[in-house]
Amino acid sequence: MTSTLHDLIAVEPLDTSLRDTLQHLIDTKTKPPGSLGRLEGLALQLGMIQRTTRPRIERPAMIVFAGDHGIAEEGVSPYPQAVTVQMVANFVAGGAAINAFSGVAGLTLEIVDAGVATPLPASPTLIDAHIGRGTRNFAREPAMSRDEAIAALAAGAARVRHHAALGTNVIGFGEMGIANTSSAACLMSRLCGVPVAECVGRGTGLDDAGVAKKRDVLAAALERHADARDPLDVLATFGGFEIAMMAGALLAAAQARMVILVDGFIATSALVVADALARNVRDYCVFAHASNEAGHRRMLDYFGARELLALDLRLGEGTGAALAVPLLRAAAAFVNEMASFESAGVADRSDRDE
Amino acid sequence: MTSTLHDLIAVEPLDTSLRDTLQHLIDTKTKPPGSLGRLEGLALQLGMIQRTTRPRIERPAMIVFAGDHGIAEEGVSPYPQAVTVQMVANFVAGGAAINAFSGVAGLTLEIVDAGVATPLPASPTLIDAHIGRGTRNFAREPAMSRDEAIAALAAGAARVRHHAALGTNVIGFGEMGIANTSSAACLMSRLCGVPVAECVGRGTGLDDAGVAKKRDVLAAALERHADARDPLDVLATFGGFEIAMMAGALLAAAQARMVILVDGFIATSALVVADALARNVRDYCVFAHASNEAGHRRMLDYFGARELLALDLRLGEGTGAALAVPLLRAAAAFVNEMASFESAGVADRSDRDE
Repeated sequence: MTSTLHDLIAVEPLDTSLRDTLQHLIDTKTKPPGSLGRLEGLALQLGMIQRTTRPRIERPAMIVFAGDHGIAEEGVSPYPQAVTVQMVANFVAGGAAINAFSGVAGLTLEIVDAGVATPLPASPTLIDAHIGRGTRNFAREPAMSRDEAIAALAAGAARVRHHAALGTNVIGFGEMGIANTSSAACLMSRLCGVPVAECVGRGTGLDDAGVAKKRDVLAAALERHADARDPLDVLATFGGFEIAMMAGALLAAAQARMVILVDGFIATSALVVADALARNVRDYCVFAHASNEAGHRRMLDYFGARELLALDLRLGEGTGAALAVPLLRAAAAFVNEMASFESAGVADRSDRDE
Repeated sequence: MTSTLHDLIAVEPLDTSLRDTLQHLIDTKTKPPGSLGRLEGLALQLGMIQRTTRPRIERPAMIVFAGDHGIAEEGVSPYPQAVTVQMVANFVAGGAAINAFSGVAGLTLEIVDAGVATPLPASPTLIDAHIGRGTRNFAREPAMSRDEAIAALAAGAARVRHHAALGTNVIGFGEMGIANTSSAACLMSRLCGVPVAECVGRGTGLDDAGVAKKRDVLAAALERHADARDPLDVLATFGGFEIAMMAGALLAAAQARMVILVDGFIATSALVVADALARNVRDYCVFAHASNEAGHRRMLDYFGARELLALDLRLGEGTGAALAVPLLRAAAAFVNEMASFESAGVADRSDRDE
């Protein structure tokens, strides 16, 4: 193992020493115990991650990693590869869904060229961290080398450390990359041990014949690369530059004890990779939403996770993660701002006089 | 029918003339069609309610109506009646969950004394609109007179018109009232034609014996008032001042073509009343969340509604409605801010070159 990789995977387990204190704080707020449902568990997790009874959402950020995929040559997406670079230009110009949702959520948005096929014009709102100009076609050969995979992990981690230095303590990750559901499906199948047919969905809108073709292409690729088994090899073989960068970003975010908002199918496949490298990462994750992409529910089950939102999204870009930010704010707000039964002079049910 | 009631129930049907224009606008944004899931339907509804292709969230407001219930004498809540006035004081002091969530959502919050048993000290942040000092015990006699019910409807409508004059175009309603799940369960049972056993839940935390007792008390009350059948009689017989005021507020909000955020079990019972008086009200409603109170799912089914959020809340106060505001903001933002495929120079799938 390289020293780079060794440093990346050093993630501490969640510090649970405040659990009881936080739970008591939550239970004595002026509401029936448990009546804030999922927000109560979220508040508990926030407090434990931040090691405080005064959890805060500081400079929340969203990083969207974009990259192209050689597997797109196989016709596994209804959209042409050129859409990746066009959509990155759209992010930079502020015209995409993640721009709109980041504005609503108060997120600092950063766009990263992780490896788009076509060079992009320099822009102050675009970070050029490209590892290559698209991955190779993993139907024929590994998508990238192990060195490229490690470089991508490190580059993703570097972006997170940049934001950590600026005070970010909540972060979400998004992605753009035509054909990247194919990459994610193979990562999921191999690392979670799920038959590929259960990992393949419609992506951005394949019809039944398209799904069947995609499934056959991916099954053959998995068969061809049957020897890719250790997490780094699996990432290099089937991954994308944006997925690898996101996996590195997840590792660094957990190291920095950030609250991590996990988006949909692609983002969760990056977590599958990060989790295979460092099991503690998952403790820092909030599963923002359940995507409509087939296979995402199965991935959530793999993590024993329950999503916060179920809005039938299937866009990516980090949109589901962005939409969950107000729920984090609400969880922090109730812990910090609500009175306790005692301080407000409200009778608890133990005072009942029925 | 009184002229007051006649004016209250004059609600226009939703103007659907912009439906196709809005749907085309939504479909040509830079995303696969339908990929923003529930937010796309929300954007369509916003545009139709506001009669515009540029929907806006203007001065969103939350009104929390509080009232006491004579039925509390029957021991149907684990909390003493005094908690109502204590919680209203907590709202006024800013210490409750709805205060915290209104802050996060950017909601103007108003607290209305609709009929709390104990007089409250005057405060600039409390509207005194009380109809009585708590309702009568409907286990023995109707909770209020028809005149009181009409006065409460009118008072709720007046609060909404106040906010409409200030520019509010999105509104949510919350409630506080010890024992008001009993009132809501009876309104639901009678107006939706659902057996009372399926309308009765744990409220703020009854145990099994408590639920059984509540069920028996309510079944007897429904039997005693078997002749209360028309919506106003049902409201007067089983309602609460806060529920009646909320029903009037719902009618006025639909008249003012506001987007209405419907909270949980109690709020939806007020909608059942408003809907029985004026069927068009439901078109202006966004069902914010599915409460954990038994019976709420059944009420949502009654409206053919699907909730936006499922966070296991069971607090009331309008908390679920407040949490849904950012989703409305996101829906408006994507319609207003996203580029189209054409304007962004992004290839649509029709340009595919697989």
